[in-house]
Order: sequence, then structure tokens, then C-alpha cells
Amino acid sequence: MKTIKDSVHDHIRIDGVARDLLDTPAVQRLRRIAQLGTVSLVYPSANHTRFEHSLGVYHLACAALEELGIEGKRADRVHAAALLHDVGHGPFSHNLESLTYRRTGRYHDDVHDLLNEGQVGTVLRDHDLDPDAVADLVAGNGRFGQLVSGELDVDRMDYLVRDAHHTGVPYGTIDTGRLVRELTFADGELVLDEGNVQTAESLLVARALMNPTVYSHSVARISKAMLRRAAERLLESPDADVDAATLQRMDDHELIVALRSCADTGEFSRRLDQRDLFKRAVWAEMDDVPGGVIEAEHESIRAFERDIASEAGVDPERVILDVPSRPSMTESTSRVMVNGEIRPLEHQSPLVGALRAAQYSQWRLGVYSPAEVRDRVGRAAVSVLGLDIEGALVSEVRNGLDATLDQFAE
Amino acid sequence: MKTIKDSVHDHIRIDGVARDLLDTPAVQRLRRIAQLGTVSLVYPSANHTRFEHSLGVYHLACAALEELGIEGKRADRVHAAALLHDVGHGPFSHNLESLTYRRTGRYHDDVHDLLNEGQVGTVLRDHDLDPDAVADLVAGNGRFGQLVSGELDVDRMDYLVRDAHHTGVPYGTIDTGRLVRELTFADGELVLDEGNVQTAESLLVARALMNPTVYSHSVARISKAMLRRAAERLLESPDADVDAATLQRMDDHELIVALRSCADTGEFSRRLDQRDLFKRAVWAEMDDVPGGVIEAEHESIRAFERDIASEAGVDPERVILDVPSRPSMTESTSRVMVNGEIRPLEHQSPLVGALRAAQYSQWRLGVYSPAEVRDRVGRAAVSVLGLDIEGALVSEVRNGLDATLDQFAE
Amino acid sequence: MKTIKDSVHDHIRIDGVARDLLDTPAVQRLRRIAQLGTVSLVYPSANHTRFEHSLGVYHLACAALEELGIEGKRADRVHAAALLHDVGHGPFSHNLESLTYRRTGRYHDDVHDLLNEGQVGTVLRDHDLDPDAVADLVAGNGRFGQLVSGELDVDRMDYLVRDAHHTGVPYGTIDTGRLVRELTFADGELVLDEGNVQTAESLLVARALMNPTVYSHSVARISKAMLRRAAERLLESPDADVDAATLQRMDDHELIVALRSCADTGEFSRRLDQRDLFKRAVWAEMDDVPGGVIEAEHESIRAFERDIASEAGVDPERVILDVPSRPSMTESTSRVMVNGEIRPLEHQSPLVGALRAAQYSQWRLGVYSPAEVRDRVGRAAVSVLGLDIEGALVSEVRNGLDATLDQFAE
Amino acid sequence: MKTIKDSVHDHIRIDGVARDLLDTPAVQRLRRIAQLGTVSLVYPSANHTRFEHSLGVYHLACAALEELGIEGKRADRVHAAALLHDVGHGPFSHNLESLTYRRTGRYHDDVHDLLNEGQVGTVLRDHDLDPDAVADLVAGNGRFGQLVSGELDVDRMDYLVRDAHHTGVPYGTIDTGRLVRELTFADGELVLDEGNVQTAESLLVARALMNPTVYSHSVARISKAMLRRAAERLLESPDADVDAATLQRMDDHELIVALRSCADTGEFSRRLDQRDLFKRAVWAEMDDVPGGVIEAEHESIRAFERDIASEAGVDPERVILDVPSRPSMTESTSRVMVNGEIRPLEHQSPLVGALRAAQYSQWRLGVYSPAEVRDRVGRAAVSVLGLDIEGALVSEVRNGLDATLDQFAE
Repeated sequence: MKTIKDSVHDHIRIDGVARDLLDTPAVQRLRRIAQLGTVSLVYPSANHTRFEHSLGVYHLACAALEELGIEGKRADRVHAAALLHDVGHGPFSHNLESLTYRRTGRYHDDVHDLLNEGQVGTVLRDHDLDPDAVADLVAGNGRFGQLVSGELDVDRMDYLVRDAHHTGVPYGTIDTGRLVRELTFADGELVLDEGNVQTAESLLVARALMNPTVYSHSVARISKAMLRRAAERLLESPDADVDAATLQRMDDHELIVALRSCADTGEFSRRLDQRDLFKRAVWAEMDDVPGGVIEAEHESIRAFERDIASEAGVDPERVILDVPSRPSMTESTSRVMVNGEIRPLEHQSPLVGALRAAQYSQWRLGVYSPAEVRDRVGRAAVSVLGLDIEGALVSEVRNGLDATLDQFAE
Repeated sequence: MKTIKDSVHDHIRIDGVARDLLDTPAVQRLRRIAQLGTVSLVYPSANHTRFEHSLGVYHLACAALEELGIEGKRADRVHAAALLHDVGHGPFSHNLESLTYRRTGRYHDDVHDLLNEGQVGTVLRDHDLDPDAVADLVAGNGRFGQLVSGELDVDRMDYLVRDAHHTGVPYGTIDTGRLVRELTFADGELVLDEGNVQTAESLLVARALMNPTVYSHSVARISKAMLRRAAERLLESPDADVDAATLQRMDDHELIVALRSCADTGEFSRRLDQRDLFKRAVWAEMDDVPGGVIEAEHESIRAFERDIASEAGVDPERVILDVPSRPSMTESTSRVMVNGEIRPLEHQSPLVGALRAAQYSQWRLGVYSPAEVRDRVGRAAVSVLGLDIEGALVSEVRNGLDATLDQFAE
Repeated sequence: MKTIKDSVHDHIRIDGVARDLLDTPAVQRLRRIAQLGTVSLVYPSANHTRFEHSLGVYHLACAALEELGIEGKRADRVHAAALLHDVGHGPFSHNLESLTYRRTGRYHDDVHDLLNEGQVGTVLRDHDLDPDAVADLVAGNGRFGQLVSGELDVDRMDYLVRDAHHTGVPYGTIDTGRLVRELTFADGELVLDEGNVQTAESLLVARALMNPTVYSHSVARISKAMLRRAAERLLESPDADVDAATLQRMDDHELIVALRSCADTGEFSRRLDQRDLFKRAVWAEMDDVPGGVIEAEHESIRAFERDIASEAGVDPERVILDVPSRPSMTESTSRVMVNGEIRPLEHQSPLVGALRAAQYSQWRLGVYSPAEVRDRVGRAAVSVLGLDIEGALVSEVRNGLDATLDQFAE
Repeated sequence: MKTIKDSVHDHIRIDGVARDLLDTPAVQRLRRIAQLGTVSLVYPSANHTRFEHSLGVYHLACAALEELGIEGKRADRVHAAALLHDVGHGPFSHNLESLTYRRTGRYHDDVHDLLNEGQVGTVLRDHDLDPDAVADLVAGNGRFGQLVSGELDVDRMDYLVRDAHHTGVPYGTIDTGRLVRELTFADGELVLDEGNVQTAESLLVARALMNPTVYSHSVARISKAMLRRAAERLLESPDADVDAATLQRMDDHELIVALRSCADTGEFSRRLDQRDLFKRAVWAEMDDVPGGVIEAEHESIRAFERDIASEAGVDPERVILDVPSRPSMTESTSRVMVNGEIRPLEHQSPLVGALRAAQYSQWRLGVYSPAEVRDRVGRAAVSVLGLDIEGALVSEVRNGLDATLDQFAE
């Protein structure tokens, strides 16, 4: 048994298969993967890693299983899945996931291969656990998969509290103790027990407030888009000889140094290192954006970027078009017991619909470029993309005024 | 200058008129008024007082005024109003306010008399401040009244954070630093500056989550109703010779001892001291309650209680009918700047409507009685009040089962 | 099983005998006993009670017993003792203990009578526990008595963290999780396991820093001395008819109202209510005080007070002489395992001696009086008590200057 | 003006010269220097960086200067020095400082060159500040140098609180608000004002408790020694072509990748990445170590290592001898005002001597090697170094027993 001090959950005790998995290269690598990618460029204290998050998820899973009275092999499988649930992440966590997915067809929670191979596979088999069964849990399959990856999973509980702790933003402070305690199974489904509509809502609300403030903060989005572009350049560079699968297994150190070393990532690497970021030329609400742009695939987006650059008379590398997907809200289907019945949260709580609407109203298409050309790029983007001009341009571009938008957070 | 250590805001510096007001009996009395009345019977750490809250409100007011660049006499008036805003509270804060209001016609924020008389009046006049002008601010009047008592007031900011800190419930953790910093005046109105829709929403959400969990927790409501009934008995007792104005100026110590000494408060005083509380016989949603009951005035409610008692065959003192007023949501009209325009939050945020709906869905009519008669009382209440029977009765009464409802929080 | 939310330990689960004891009048009364007596006059957030502290001690005792692998009846006895360890406290906790001890011969941890009688006795016997065995544990006797009241007891662990949390003073933040985890029995003695010299030191250090800052803050001492004097007047008043045993069973509400109602407590009651406190006329280090004064018994102290008053020409009720006992340091004999041997902390850690010396250097004799006569009283006290004049007088008295001493904390 | 959210100090406002310095490459590089080097291998949450620490130091410097009433150019110089005080750090902060110092003759606070060159030099001169004057402050020279680097500097105040926050160890929680507020100048010296002996002691105590628990934790020392050895190999590798000055200007990413790429750092790089660390073969108290070994210079230490390896029959690369320098205690000369006199803390507080003695008793010489050879290496080291055998060997080596030493912290 090992006891590890954590700044969020205090002491975490780790034992059995988890204790052995801890020392594998695949888990130790998570120490070098930033939990929130480039968010530390907005919130400088947010340097936490997937490693401490994985420990936290393991800790909450143990607590939940104990409450549920699950022991033995079934518990071991969940313990392993909790600790391993993020080993599939590439450098900078989610930041490059869309890029690597396009080329490998694999998301970070597709870990059947990773869990079968190397020391992880050995440890699992030594503990008489089937790597594929553990990988299924990581993918959210099966009865206990819901606990690892589902609407009420311990992953979300840990990251909301941890991200709040490390950014200093107070909105993620949910009551994990109560959440874990009130989980129960009903008809094979993981639900929150009677009297916990507010508990379920608090999870939803925490994410709804953290979203615009942290996860989708404009500066986080800009830096992430720049990082993605740089990584794309790296993959395409004939000198670098890095493919998507290789990139996916790098840690943050390796990626950063690879970007610096590669001539083709040009300005992006220096800009990221010095936090000399692109600025928003366009920041448009959903209503002001044609449906065809919202639904555009990667290739069309690259084409739009080239057209905007051409219209603005700037190098195509100086224009980034960033179109988020339509908002989703996993928690809306969280199940709560109300008067002895299982009900999806969205049927029980008017908050769900409202938060979904809020997410839509917070959705923004962004066009980013160096400060000195944002005016030209903004107007070109409005024309190329067919945006409503007043709503889309950021105020400097519109009015020639200085923006007040960036005054908060670094 | 005096520096006071506060467990919420750390160091509070107090100077000038506030420094002198601090030593007056009216302000020192607030040390003996529990901020949350009987909520400590649910959350045992919630023993904080109106005194520390008043210091906190003063502290945030100072910070806001400094941000707004307000100095001199105008600032002094607000400083005084912030420190004095709660001197009108009776024992146990809001718990007895409806009772005393019916007999004195005065709410706790009607403090013109209190600020003119005694040491408070002397200190204000010595600092060349008009007590009536300060009392106007406490009542929320005038440009700066909005800061003391309005949709975006520092009162709310302090109590949400303080109540969260002392109960241990994590939902009230708003970002007071940001709120205070982003306040500004536009067209004479206090608004939150550009980029703060989420900041405004977080205030709203914090109150929406604290409400059912803390302020309207069923046990808090039961104990408050019992305290109110006991105090009513005290006012009506020929032996006690206490009138509403006298009761209003008591502190918690005095009221508790007066209730114990008075023969006519009978069982209530002992029950409150020993936390031997009534139980819910009925807990009905708004849809299951006839409009006439929801709108009933005090006298009708007392009549209903007598009828229920008679139908159930119990002493009328063993039945309490607790009908909350319809929910309100002050924060819905908070103003935020969006693209250079002042907008009420409810026009900007879909959350407002959702939270209002949530408040309605959380509204409950309660009928309380000793555990041993709750069955009879519950059925009698359903019949007398014309409630929908299934929705209204608590599960024990309905099913003869043990309730799982009270398992959380003391 | 009941779950209670605590602002320090988050969720506390309470079950079995403790669950039943919780509802007894003797335990519920602790809600109305301030944990730190008059310290809230210095730190306004410090309104916590013996009730929440008792829950915390119970919680830590459960954790320690679980670590130690103790179950069944032996564990139940400790659970009961932990929850009941403070039921013997009078109003304002330790503040009046010397006063009542002189008249009843009983300290707060002498609870054999209390645990045998009333509902507490019934609950204990119903759970097949011997009240006297539980009372022995409260007194610190027996193997597990060390855990309830000893050098490494959970009482101290809870109060240091809780007092820090509620005052806002950061010095009490020890690592309770680690302390509880590292306790073990060796040769029948409770010790900290290998590698915990610093853990033991941190407990010692926390108390050494909290002492002058909180527990013995000059304003806390003055207000406590005034309260003690007022209570003494109450006991001596022919009108009041209150004896020491009665006073001992009061709660804070009752004592405060009794002091207000009693004509003989005169000025003290009003002064305490309004925080219009006496000031220090003398504040003398141990070296400047004759041994005979340090060792003086209560009667001699009262005689000194009368002599000082007479010399100063003031009413004897306006002079209080406050002579603390010589410092003690329970933790110095805490046992730690070092290289397989049990060693007392004082043999292992040079800090112990240093902190003992620090306590001596912080010891102060105080003479208090109303501000307007402090000059006369200070000089009279120097003469009557035979103090070294320069060291003893506070600076105002010595220099006619305004003190800077009280600027910090309320 | 920019506002940055910090997880320790909440909002940090940054303006003027500091605002402009923030965007320089030299300051942005600090985002990639771990504040505590390899300590994150013990405390996995401790991923904070020199960048957020520098912001914190700047924040406290601003607060202190405001209290002291310092404005204008004098304040600007201190603001710049506070933000820049750590730009001289190499990768992993202090971990490699002895190594680079031996080859460059320069410690991290020798920044005259760095502040004169590049964008930092330009910004300083644009704000009409002399880079050398700022560098002097960083080196602790001059009246205000004491505030940046001295016994009572804001550097220490920030790191104690920040390291406690991020490791989760509660011992560093000093009262920064009070410390900053009570600083004053007397006779040109920075001192703590009257009534602050405990405040000064708390700083000392915090460091004394953090030291063995965090900064000198055995696993932190082992991993640091391994990193240092790897870096030394890198500098000596003919293939790598890295000199000490180049290494000094790397960030953590670059160093880690360079170590991985260099064939001559062999096993160390993989071991650090996978946390497959050497174990203690010897852990000896000062009394058991001959003076000649304690005082040995680098070359002698390398010779000892070779002798131990030869005696044990293992590769010299598998033996590390780690001899810390004799303890120092900067804070002992902190000055406090007592009765109008400036006194060094060590004359006023018996704690100083005790903590110094504690530091000596905690001093340990370590010999580290792979687990499988620790037995042989331990016995060889005892013989080669002339150690007292019983005190020096760790228990496994002595007894063939499994160690209990590593059970706590990762």
C-alpha cells in the first residue's frame, strides 16, 4: 500500500493492481501531459497533469465502489480502468485530438492496444485481469463503464474540482463527497439516489460555468488552434518524419522540442513559447454564421482559410478559422431517482434546457490572425464566410477602438 | 485604523466613521444574532453572526467604491450604510421577521429611527453624516443604495460566500473579487461591465443552489416554523409581557431564555433546545395545492391549522402549516453591459427563466407535527386543504415506510 | 446512519451508540457553548461550538480506530467517549473552569456522574456500555484513554484545525490525515510510527503559534477575566441564588441573561455586551514578577486587587489581577518511534525545549482596569506587587503615549 | 492594466513596467521551469512554475511597497526586480545550480547580463530604469534589495504558501497578509513592527517544517541527484556539444529531450522518465560522518564514488554520493521591533536556536544505487567513507528487512 499526497483529495491510498500499474511507463508518462493543454496561457497556475488527475479518478472510483459494496475482481477491473482511463491521451491532452483522430481514426479512450501491450499488459495479466475488459470500461461500456465514462462518471467529478483548484476559478466546486455517496444502481443503471436533483444539477452547472470561463476561454481557444496548426505542419513536414501515431505517443516535452526543431512550423512555435498569440479578427455568434460554415469539414475549413487569406492579401499561414462543433451536454441524461422512479435529469430539471440554450448562445466562430492584420483579415472573413458583419467582427475591427475584451485573465 | 481578521476575507481594515460605529451597542449586538437563524440545526458549523457578515459587507463596499473611484462624504455614507445595514434585524435574523412585521409594520431594513437615536446617531452626526440619508441607502434608495441593497449588492456577495464557508456547502463560492472589480455605473445604474454575463449568472446560480440545500432545507424550515410559533406564544402570553417591538430588539440569548421562562411556549422551547423537532406530515408541490391556500393570510393559516388539528383529533399546538410565498428572483433584473448596451440579465441569459422555473418546482407547502401523530395529521391536512393526496403526503404517511428523506445533513 | 456536513472534515458519518447519543439533551446543549469562550471578541468569526468540535473529535477517533483495526465494544466505548468528552463543560468552555473548580472540586473532564444519569446513561446502558468505563476514557485513563485525552489525542487534532479555520489564523493547519494514519500502539502506548518526528513537531508547533495569537491574546484574556469576575459576582449575589454546580450546567444563553439580570454584576455585563473592555495597566514578563505573586492563590490575588485599588484610589471592582499558571507542554512527552525504539518527543526534538522556553518568554501577568484609571492603577500595581517598573507598565502608562499594541485583530 | 487569476493570491493586477516585462521571452520562459524541480516525483500535484511564483512575488512586493508608501521610480525598480528575480534560473530551478555554478561561476540571482540584453533590457530602458540597478535589487543589494532577497523578503513569503498549496502539505501556511502589512523600515533596515515576534517565528517554522517534508524529502533528493548526474554526463558528452551556459538557458522541455537524445546519459534519462529511481544504500546522520567527508569538494566526491563502486564491484555510474552542505538559516537574522528597539530574531526567540539544531539533526548524507545492489553499495560506502555502520545503513541493508521508510508520499 502506498499513500500519495494530493492537493485536491489530500491522501490517496493506492494498492493492488493500481499500485503496480502506477510504475509503468504508460502511466508515468501522464506526468508530462498537461491536463488542460494551453489553458495555462490564460490561467498560469493551471499546470496540473493527467497523472494527478488519474490518481484522483482512481481515488473517487474506490470511494464509489466501496459505497456500492463492490469488491474483488469486479472492483479491480474498475480500479485499473480508472487509473488507466487517460493513457491514450496525446501531448497537450484534448488539444490535438481532432488532428490525430483524422489520421489514426482513434480517440484517446480507445485503448485496447495500449492496455494489451508492454508493462501495462503484463501487470494486468499478472493480476488476472483481461486487458480488453479493462479497455471496455475505459470506453464506457458495461455496467461499471458508466462509472468510468458516463453521465455521472468520476472522471468529470475529479476534473471539475481539480481544474477549479488549479485555475483558481471558483465555479467547479461541486460536492464530490456527496456525489460519490449518493450513486447507486437501479435496473442496471447508475443513478443518483432520492433527494439529489440539486446534486445532479450542481455538476451540470459547474461545467456550464467552467466552460466559457476556462475550457473555451478565447485565449485558450486561440492558443490551442495555433498549437494544432503547428502540429499539423510538423506532420506534413518532409524533414520531420513524424506521423500521427508517433505524435500521439509523445509527451509535452517532446512535442514542444519537435515543433521548435522543425523549420516548417515556422512562427507558431516561437509565438507559443513567447505567448505572442494571434488575435480575434472575427468572433461570431451562431445566428450570424451560415449553416454550411458551421457544418464544414476540415478540408473546407482549410479552403476557407486560403480564400480569406487571399482576399485579405496575407500569407495563408496567418489565418486560422476555428469552428467549434455544436454544443453537447452529456449530463442532461444523468439519471436521478425521484419518488422511486428513475428519471433523466432533463425531464426533471428546467436547468438542463436552459444550460443547453446558454451553450448555444456562448458558441462562437473565431477567425484569428496576427494583430497587425486582424482588420483586413476580419473584413475578408466576413465576406468569404458570409457572416453578419456587425455581430461577427470584434470591436477593434468594427470601430477602430481598442478592445476591452481581453482585460481579464492573462 | 483597526485591522480585523476575518475567516472569509482575511484582513478587514476599518477606519473613519465605520471604526467609530463598530463600538456602538447597536453594532456589537449583531455578535449575538445568528446569521442563518436555526440553520445551525442542519449544518452544525453554521454559527456565524450578523456581526461578521456586516464587516464583510463593509469590506466589499470599500473595495467596490475604490474601484468606482468614489471618495469623501459620498463614500462615508455608503461605508456607514454597509456596516449598519443589518442593525434592524431581530433575534435569529429573518426567522421571525414575518411575525414582527405583522405587528410593527417594519422590516429589518427600515432603520430610520435606529440610526437617528443613541450612539449610532451621535457617531453619524459627529462625522457630519445625516442618519436619514444613511437609512435611505440601507433601504436601497438612491444611486449608491443599489450597492448596499439591490440586484448586484455587496450584501448578497458576502452572504453567499460566508454561508458556503460556514455550512461547508460548496455551492456559494462566487468570485467576489471579480464581481466587485467589474461593477460600474452606466446611466446612473449599477451594472456589470462587458464580458460578465457569466459573472452575473454565477451569482444567480449560487443562490439557486444554496436555496434548497441550505436556506430552505426542510429541517431549517421546520425549526424556523417552530421558533416562530414559540415566539408568537410568547407575544400572546399574559405572563411574559413582551411586545413585538421589544422582541425585535432582543438578541438570541434573550429570546431563548425568554422562551424557556415562559410557561405558554410549552413544548416548543424544550424541543428546539433538544433538537426534538416536528416531522413533515405533508410536503406538497405547488401544483398540488389550491390557489386559495397558497395565497392565504396569517389568520386563515391559523384557522387551517385548527381545522386540521380538529380533524386529526390532536391539540392545535401540535400542527404547523408552513406556506412559503411565491418565489422571487431579485437577480433576474441585474444589469450587464453587452456590446455597449445595458441589458437586464433576464433578457440576456436563458438561465434566468430556468432558475425561476426551478424555484417554482422546488416550492413546497409543509405541514409539520410530532412524529407520533404525523400520519393522522398528514391525512387530515390533505382533506382540509384539498391537496392532491399522492403528491402531498410524505412517503411514511403514504406508505407506512421509513423515510429516506432526512438521511443527509443533520 | 446519519451524515452530517462539517465545515472542517466535510462529511461526518455517525452511527450506532454515537447516533443515539447525538439526540440527548447533554450533547445538544453543546451547540450553545462557544468553543473558544470570549475569543470571538478578538476574532469575530470564531463562533464555533463544542458541538461541532465534539463531532470532529468523534470523526477523527473513528478514523484512528479503523487504522488501528479496533472494532466492536472496545471501539464503541471510544466512540461514545469521543462524542461525550466535552459534556462536562460549563458556559464559555474553559473560561470559568477555575472558578467552578474552586467551588465544586470538579474539572470538565470529570463526567462520571453526568454519564450515569439521564438520557446519556440510558443510551449507554442500552448499548451495553458501562458509563463509568466511558467516563474513564474521557479522563484519559486506560489504553484508549490516550486517544481521547493524552499527548497525541484526537481532541487536540480537531481543535487546532477547527480553531484555525474559524479564526482565520493559518497557524493551526496540521496534517490530521497523516497524524491519524500514523498512530500505532507499541508496548501498550500510543505512539507515532517511524518517520514522524516532524509530524509530532507540527502538532507542538501549531499549538505554540496558536497560543499567543489566539488562546492567550491579550484581549481574549481581558474579556475572560471580566467574564470570570462577573460570574463570581453572580455566585456571591444574594438575589441571584445561583450556585457553582448550577452555573456549571448553564449554557451561554442562560449565563449571559443571568449576568444581565443580576444587579450585582454591575458594569461587567454591560461592558462585555458592548465590548467596552478594561485595558492593560500592567503587562509584566515572568522575570519582573516576584515568585510570591506568581504562586499566589485566589484569596491572595483578591487581596492584591483590593490593595492596588486602595493605593490607586479606585473602586476595587475596577481592578483585575490576572496571573496565569506556569506554562505546561503536554505534547513534550508525545512518543515517536525512531529506529525501532519508542522515544519521548522531548528527547528526540530540540524544538520541545525551545518551545517551552518560548512559552515562558510569552508568559505575562496582567493588571486590567478601565481606560480612564489605567495610569493610576498601573503605578499602584507596580508598587503593591513589587514589579520591575519599566518592564511591567504598558507603554501608555509609562510614557503617556498612545499604545500601538492593540492595532491588530479586533 | 491586466488582471491575472492566480490560485494562491486570487487576482493579481499588473501594470506599468511589469506589464511590459511580462511579454518578454525571458519571463515567458519561466512558464517552463518547474518551481520545485523533481519534487513532483514525490508530490504529484507540485507542477507549479517559476512564472506563477514570479507573479506572486510581484504581487506581494506591490502590496508591501504600498504599505510602506513607496511610489514612482523607486517602486518601479522593485516591481521589475520582483518579476525578474528568477529569470536567471536554469531548467528544474535549483536542481542543477551547483553543477552550472562550478562551470560558469554564476548563481541564478546574478542577472546583470540577462537584464541588460534582449527585450528585457529594452523594456527596462524604455521605462527609464537602469538594468544594473534592477539586477542589484535581485542580488539583494540596497535598501529595497532586502525586500526582494533578504531575511524578510517577499520571495520566501510567496514560495512557502505556494509550495504548500501545490504539494498539499499544510505546513507552509503563513499569514502573508500580516507579514506584508507589518514590514517597516527602521534605520534603513527592513524590520517587522512591534508585536510581531510570532509573525517572524511563523516564517521560520514554516520553512523548518517544509524542509524535511518537501524540499529535502529523500525521494526528492535522490531524483535531483540523478538529474544532476545525467546533466553532468550531457555536459561531458562529446556528441551532445552542450556547455554549461547553454544548459543554464534551456527550459525543462529542452533539457529532458536533450537527456533522452544523448547516448551518454544512459540509464538516468529513462529512470527519471519512468520514476525508476535509485534507492538509499546509506542515510547517515552528521555525527556518524567524518568531517573530511562533510567538507569534501566535488572532485573528492567523485573519487569517493569511484572507490565505493570499485569496493562494491559495480559500475561507477551506479553509485551516487550526496553530501548536502551544512544547514544555514537566513531567517535567524530577521529583525523585529521589540519595545522600540530593533532586535535580530535569534536574540529574541529561543526557537531560532532550536530550529537550527533541528536542521542539524535532520541533515543526512546519502548514498544511492539501484535497488538490486544497494546492499553491496551500502557496506562498501560505510567502509570507504569511514561511517559509523549502525547509524548509516538503511534498515534493509542492515537487517535484510523490507524498508518501511518509503511508505509515505509517492
